[in-house]
Amino acid sequence: MPKTKGEQTKEMILHKAAEVFNRQGYFGASLSDIMAATGLEKGGIYNHFANKDDLALQAYDYAVGLVEQAFTAALQNKRQAIDRLLALANVFRDMPKGFPVPGGCPVHNTAVKADEAHPLLRDRARQTMTEWHNVIRRIVQRGIERGEVRPEINPDALATLFIATLEGAIMLTRLYDDPVYMNQALDHLANHLETTVRQP
Amino acid sequence: MPKTKGEQTKEMILHKAAEVFNRQGYFGASLSDIMAATGLEKGGIYNHFANKDDLALQAYDYAVGLVEQAFTAALQNKRQAIDRLLALANVFRDMPKGFPVPGGCPVHNTAVKADEAHPLLRDRARQTMTEWHNVIRRIVQRGIERGEVRPEINPDALATLFIATLEGAIMLTRLYDDPVYMNQALDHLANHLETTVRQP
Repeated sequence: MPKTKGEQTKEMILHKAAEVFNRQGYFGASLSDIMAATGLEKGGIYNHFANKDDLALQAYDYAVGLVEQAFTAALQNKRQAIDRLLALANVFRDMPKGFPVPGGCPVHNTAVKADEAHPLLRDRARQTMTEWHNVIRRIVQRGIERGEVRPEINPDALATLFIATLEGAIMLTRLYDDPVYMNQALDHLANHLETTVRQP
Repeated sequence: MPKTKGEQTKEMILHKAAEVFNRQGYFGASLSDIMAATGLEKGGIYNHFANKDDLALQAYDYAVGLVEQAFTAALQNKRQAIDRLLALANVFRDMPKGFPVPGGCPVHNTAVKADEAHPLLRDRARQTMTEWHNVIRRIVQRGIERGEVRPEINPDALATLFIATLEGAIMLTRLYDDPVYMNQALDHLANHLETTVRQP
């Protein structure tokens, strides 16, 4: 069924608002910024959203949806555990450059920017991060069961290392606008996966 | 020379404002928050600072100063490169818990929260991060010269890995209010330093 004009407008607002919130944070993003990005008046925006919180939460879900589409695409046709981990890591490679959502990783940004100042958004970030952590943990766990990953590897600790290294590298690469930091982190992870994680 | 009453008040404001800005970010921290934290009226605060930017920048420097005092204390009596790296890593262990400044790492928070929305603060974060990166790089470089670190280690890449892993772990540990993430990251770094970095 084709989208109604109202649904199209709502999706356009989410697309633009996701970028504004991801770049500027909940508190740094004003209604004027959203109006400028969408070309709509206040009424045209709040016709589709109850308030700023509602818009911010839906824009967050929209941004995370884009990242998760990129994860799904990267995992297509990858069956081996180390291949799957490397494919996911490569999605993070593009995040500081603004792909799939401009402004870096929406979960990291929301976790740090919302933090104690916006518990609703912080809880949403926690929920997404738990899902991502579980995805990686399960890849490692299945890799052990299939003999692709050394049995002494702790899936939980490897998931943490994977996420911490990549999210820290996004912060550095965005701070300096220089991909060298992400490339160094990815090289380390790839090397760790090959030499310590992969079952020889 | 003892501090004047004005100097004492200014330092009290910086101490309280550093915590408010570190927890809530520049945009999430209002003047009312600073007034509530310091117990001062607007005039009592702006008697010592030109405007919110001036206060935020000086509070940032104050917070970073506390972290760097912790680094200096940790490095006391540590001469060997691996020992020095482990001592610095242990300062990060306490950062999610609010030591030496409540709210996590002020450089990470400022980098992510200010980002494109506040270039002045972002530049300050960049400058501090460059200094920290250089400190770690030089420890590794001297370790190679003294035969404590394997000569094939790239000091620049190790500094990036060190910072990315720990900063990413601060984000996770704060997001979940659970030290397990920091402990897993520190275990990985310690293991990496022992098995891959240390000259046998």
